[in-house]
This record gives sequence, structure tokens and C-alpha cells, in this order.
Amino acid sequence: MTKPRIIIIGAGFAGLYAARALADKPVEVLLIDRHNFHTFTPLLYQVATCALDPSEIAYPVRHIFYDRANIRVLMGEVVDIKPADQKVYVRTNSATEAVSYDYLIVAAGSATNYFGNQSVEQTAFGLKDLQDAVKLRNHILKLFERAAWTEDEAYKQALTTMVVVGGGPTGLETAGALYELYNHVLRQEYRHSPDMAAHVILVEATDQLLASFPPKLQQSALKQLTSLGVEVILGNPVQEAGENYIRLQDGREIPTYTIVWAAGVKASSLGAMLGVELQRGGRVPVEPTLEAVGLKNVYVVGDMAYLEDAAGQPYPQLVQVAQQQGKLAARNILRRIDGQAQEHFQYRDLGIMATIGRSRAVAWIFNRLPFTGFIAWVMWLALHLIWLMGFRNRASVLIGWVWNYLTYDRSVRIILDQAGTKVHSPEAVEVEY
Amino acid sequence: MTKPRIIIIGAGFAGLYAARALADKPVEVLLIDRHNFHTFTPLLYQVATCALDPSEIAYPVRHIFYDRANIRVLMGEVVDIKPADQKVYVRTNSATEAVSYDYLIVAAGSATNYFGNQSVEQTAFGLKDLQDAVKLRNHILKLFERAAWTEDEAYKQALTTMVVVGGGPTGLETAGALYELYNHVLRQEYRHSPDMAAHVILVEATDQLLASFPPKLQQSALKQLTSLGVEVILGNPVQEAGENYIRLQDGREIPTYTIVWAAGVKASSLGAMLGVELQRGGRVPVEPTLEAVGLKNVYVVGDMAYLEDAAGQPYPQLVQVAQQQGKLAARNILRRIDGQAQEHFQYRDLGIMATIGRSRAVAWIFNRLPFTGFIAWVMWLALHLIWLMGFRNRASVLIGWVWNYLTYDRSVRIILDQAGTKVHSPEAVEVEY
Repeated sequence: MTKPRIIIIGAGFAGLYAARALADKPVEVLLIDRHNFHTFTPLLYQVATCALDPSEIAYPVRHIFYDRANIRVLMGEVVDIKPADQKVYVRTNSATEAVSYDYLIVAAGSATNYFGNQSVEQTAFGLKDLQDAVKLRNHILKLFERAAWTEDEAYKQALTTMVVVGGGPTGLETAGALYELYNHVLRQEYRHSPDMAAHVILVEATDQLLASFPPKLQQSALKQLTSLGVEVILGNPVQEAGENYIRLQDGREIPTYTIVWAAGVKASSLGAMLGVELQRGGRVPVEPTLEAVGLKNVYVVGDMAYLEDAAGQPYPQLVQVAQQQGKLAARNILRRIDGQAQEHFQYRDLGIMATIGRSRAVAWIFNRLPFTGFIAWVMWLALHLIWLMGFRNRASVLIGWVWNYLTYDRSVRIILDQAGTKVHSPEAVEVEY
Repeated sequence: MTKPRIIIIGAGFAGLYAARALADKPVEVLLIDRHNFHTFTPLLYQVATCALDPSEIAYPVRHIFYDRANIRVLMGEVVDIKPADQKVYVRTNSATEAVSYDYLIVAAGSATNYFGNQSVEQTAFGLKDLQDAVKLRNHILKLFERAAWTEDEAYKQALTTMVVVGGGPTGLETAGALYELYNHVLRQEYRHSPDMAAHVILVEATDQLLASFPPKLQQSALKQLTSLGVEVILGNPVQEAGENYIRLQDGREIPTYTIVWAAGVKASSLGAMLGVELQRGGRVPVEPTLEAVGLKNVYVVGDMAYLEDAAGQPYPQLVQVAQQQGKLAARNILRRIDGQAQEHFQYRDLGIMATIGRSRAVAWIFNRLPFTGFIAWVMWLALHLIWLMGFRNRASVLIGWVWNYLTYDRSVRIILDQAGTKVHSPEAVEVEY
């Protein structure tokens, strides 16, 4: 008798935890991902701001499962899903291939959501994968180089002004790290341009930061962020963006060449391939068992899944939820194969945290213990270090962090790309040195 | 009185050592490079073969000179040099700028030389800068992924066959590292494809490896390379290459999708901008003082310079020569400013080495002491570690090497690029897992 075949789409947190739960079980698993690595997304902003190397937060998927005989890995892009035929179509780097499944776990995650604002979509940098992070790093370093050699003060100010949109953890972390990158780290290398300073502006549409945190921590985060030097604009949604500006709803226009969009995500477009009606943000409605509503043998987990908790609120698109859902989907499939009843999803919320900068953070543990400042920051560092995959990555990131802490250095300051960032100077100038 | 202004083109070994020798002297220096970092080129092959991260062998130029008030750094591409006007034209990421000099040091290095063979130039991978190395890494990892999922044995063999052309140190190092990458490191992660093995073939046009080493070490290198598992073809120049093959002069055709060209370099095309007659390989003839023949106030150093030694042989295009010439050019400019006589270039040859793989290497120290095997390999590691710039990079590379040595792991196995590598499969197949 052949073993049941399970396809997992996506090697993010949800897919990875599903695959782990299926390892060495009497099933054949095919894990499909666009990349050959799992990305530790919580540290993407550190790659974008020169603190870590891409490979330090990426872990080869094949290596994770190399000693698990029943798990195979296929690198490719899923281009279609046919639930009626129980088939997935994958485009690899040479062909489009059809693969059949008995059970399917869809865990393709989410993408940046520009909420239909095309001018922003064309201009802004997302921060959802490693390519995004490297692109942003290259861009910012190039602008600093440019700023060092221009005599035009307004232009220089625009080149060194960075606007981060979105008051969630990613927005705060990115804004804080961008501010520190230049003002605490690079400044000494630009001493020939003593008038140069980086300006970071955090823009949030609603009137509060960190919506899911209690008010006291929200206020602490705001205070820590502004005391660091970041300008915070609340209650002022972005209206339009262009190559060299961003305009807010109240009419304020900020000259800038760098907009980082951390204001929202939408579920992967793979949801639309399932042929079911989607929920807000393109999420796929699932039963409490994590089976897609109206489909057989298809489980949807993580950022893509839409499931409401007891209070009628959808579960947040967080790493913890993804990990726990991935695990449960795998267990439910095994239970179904064994003829046992399906289990319902029960979220264990261990807590939420956001770091703002050196010695600055907020943490809300077990939904009742608040921490701020240095203690919260150390907790954040320790937790992310433990959480990171692979001994080598952990050791390397730890050394990097200690090094950064002691020396204020950020070592990964190289501009490495194939295509140049185009920024038009108002005029060509004769350089004096 | 304004200080004399010196432009250095290139932040490779020659340019860097020139700038260092001019630091804190009564001159104004402008150091121009295409990149914002100095590349430690001897370890490029380790980036290409997943052992090191790009940033571990790259060091931000600004950081090297951050506390040297008289050295400025400009990132840009030199598009023209007008020795008559004493001007250099630089295209930065926004404009083309004109900069004047009193003295010019041209140290733009060398590029891959395909000796006019266009089919090879279009197909082969060079290994001269970080982009080259990352491109090659991405390419090879993609081919392994592809090979794991094809049923076509001949196609699989072609995908995992890598041909390295050139029997110099770079060729040997790359061939050895490529062989070890798959056969010693990745193999365990491809256990679902037990028939997969990587084949590495080193092709050299002449009938000897390592032309500049004594015969005994040449033979040792050949023995070490073949005992590792690399096939070595001597005395058989490359005639033609295509997407999926390489053809040698004797008619032998090797099916492969990966050709690494390490068979020669030519001086940077910037030499042509000087308006003097160039020597073999596009090198600029210089006086023993390193001044370009026929030009005033222009020094050419490193791979770009053509100068013969006492035996009538041109100095080799090596890091040591570049460093020593860079230093002398700087010193000669300072002597000229002080009204002192110019010094002649005297090469101090400390030795040459080439590593072949784990515990395999040859070294020829002070032109008289030969070492092979483990001892030569440890010498090579120690020397390159000391030579590498920056404490952080040294620590990080050392940890990486120790880790690799103990675990046979190579941690930087991520495919991270903007554009895909196109490899055409003979036919689309239904995947079985």
C-alpha cells in the first residue's frame, strides 16, 4: 500500500512546523517553496539596516530535513492548484510540473498590502523577504553616498530623510534601526559632510502605535521612539507618494527618496487558486480544524488562514499563530488517516514584543506582564536568538550583536546589486575635495 | 597655499595601499571606486562555493579611512581621464562629475580575459568580483535543485558537471572547492537522489598546472587535485562553449551548464583612456618609478601596470605586487612634492601559495621553501586570515572555517538573486515523490 501523499506549499513558519510534525510519520511529504531557504522574517529589518547578513537569517530547507526520509523538498513557484483533481502545478527553473496530493497544506504566507494605492506601490519598499531587505539596504547606502557629495541642502536633506509607514512592530523596529544606522554608526565615516544627519519619520494612519499592545506600552513605545530621535506622525494616513516625496492626508508633503511600507499585509495570491470566496485581506476562511471551508483535504494555515477566535476577532497574522496552526494541520491530517476526530485550533498566546533600538523595547508577556526599556530589549534579543534556526546562525548573530553593541559598528554595509538605483540629481556639479 | 590633490582610481589592493601611505600627509586625497567596499579577492572562490558571506570578504572603504581627515571617498565609475587637463570624469549614481588632480594614481585592476573567444565570454562565469561570485553560487545551487528532480540521466550528469578553465591558483582553488561543495557537503541533503554526484573537470591549455611554481610543487598539486576527485585535463585549450557544452581543441565535448573561466585576466579598460600605447593584456607601460611612460604626474600600479623585472619578465599580476607598487607610487609622489628623487620599484617576493581543498595545498615561500598538504593548507589559512581586513571579518571567517572543518557544513547556501538562471529541461515531466 502506498503511503498518503501530503503537499505543503510554503516553507515559512507555518509550513515548516507542519513538515516537522509529519517527519518520520507514515506519509510522504513534498515541501514546496519559491526559495531554497526558510527566512527568519522577524529579523529582516536588521538585514535592511546593515546589522546582519542575509544568510544569517536564512536557513536551507533541505538541510532542516536532510535526515528525514519521508520529506522531500522542491524549489519552485506554485502557479495553479486544482482541488478537484487534487493537483498542484509548480514552475521550477526549467519546467512546469504537476504534482498530486492526498492532502494539501497551503501555507504561502502574506505579501505587502498597499491597499490599492498605486503611487505608493510603485515607490515604496516592502520588507517581506530577503530580496526586499537587500534592495532597501543597497538603496539607503547609495543615497548616503550621494548625499555626501551634493551641495544642494534641500536635496541632501531629502536624500537622508526616510519615511517608515506603519506603527506596528515592523514599522517601529525599522524606524529605530534606520535612525541608529546613520546617526549612531555611519556618521563618523561621513565627517567630511558634518552637516549631514539622517531624519527618520514614522507615519501611522491611526492615532496609536502598536495597536495590539495595552495603552501603557503604546505610550512607552512612543516615548522611547521620540527620545531616540525618530519623528512620529499619528492619525495621518498616506495619500500619495512619488520618487522624491510622500504626501499625507492633511496635506503635509515630506521630501524623501525612501519610503518603507510596513502598514499592512495581504494573504498570498495563492488563496484565489482554491476557488473559494475569500475573506478580508484575501484570507481563506477555514474551519476550526483548519480545513478550508467548502474544500476536501485542503488545510490552510498561517497568514493565509481566516479563523475567528471566541471573541469574534480573526487570529492575528503572527509567527506564533502560524507555527501552532502548521502543527495542528499536520496532526489533523494524521488523525484523519488514522480515522480519529479532528481537533480544533486553540491559540496559546505567549506574548508580543517590539524592539525600538539599542536598549529600547516593549514586551507584553502572557497577555499580562508588561516590560519596557533595557529589560524588554534583552528579552527580545534572547528570544529571537533562541528562536533562530541553526547553531551556526545563532552563534554568528550573537557575535554580530555583541560586536554591534560594543563598537556601534554595523559590518554589512556593502552595496551589492545587479541594477543601480536611479536617483536624479538636480544638476551635475564639479566636485571639490 | 592649497595642498596638492591626488586622485586614486580603484580601492583594490594597489589603491588601498597607496591611500594608506598618503594618510595624514600634507596632501588631499580622493579615492574613487565603483563599489563602496574593498574586496578581498583571494577568497572570492569561497563566496562562490557557499563557504563565506559576501560581506565577510568586503570591507567598507569609508570605514578604513574614517579617521583620516585628508582622505575622501567617492563611489562612482570613472568614464574618462584627460591627462592633458589633469581631470578625471566620474559617473556617480546621479550625475557625471569632473574632478581635477595634481597627481593621479591609476589602480583599476584587471578583468576576466576571454582572449576574444566570444562563445566562451557569453557562456562562462568569471570570478573577479563579488557579483561574479554570488552569481556563480546562485547558478550552481539552482542546477543541483534541478538535477535532483530530473529522471534524464544524461541531463542530470550535465547539470552536475562543472568545468573550471585555467590551471593557476584561482582555477585550482575553485575546482577543489566546487568538488567538495557537493560531494562532501551537500550530498547528504540530496539523499533522495542517491545517483547524484558532482563532477568537476579542470582544463588547462598548457601541459602544466601552476606555471609559476617549481616542478615538484606542480606535480604535488596535480596529485592532490586528482586524489581529491577532480579530473584534470592538460594541454588541451578550450575551443568553443555553449549553454550546455564545452568543446576542447582535441574535439572532446563535455556536456555542462557551468563553465568557470579562470584562465587569464586583462588590465582594466581604463588604461585606454590614458592615450598611451598599451602593452600585452592592455597593461600600461610604466617607468621603474611607476610613472606611466610618456605622461606627467600619472602613476599606474598593480594589475594595470606593465614593468619588466631584471630578467626581462613583466611583474606578475599578484596582490603582493599591487600592494608594494601602490605604496611606492604614494611615496614617490610625496618625494616629488618634497623635491626628492624618485625611487625605483623593487619587488620583495614573499612567496606564492595555492590551496586545493581540505588539508590540501602547495606553498613556495621566499622562492626557496616548498610545502605541501596539511602544513601548506594551514599556512594558507593563517596567512589569509591575517591578511583579511577588519577584526569582525577575521573573527567571522575564522569561526566559519572552524565550523566548516568540524561539521563539513557550508552555511551560505542560499539562492538570492533578482533574475533567474535559465536552464531548459528537455521535457516537462510529472514529478513523483
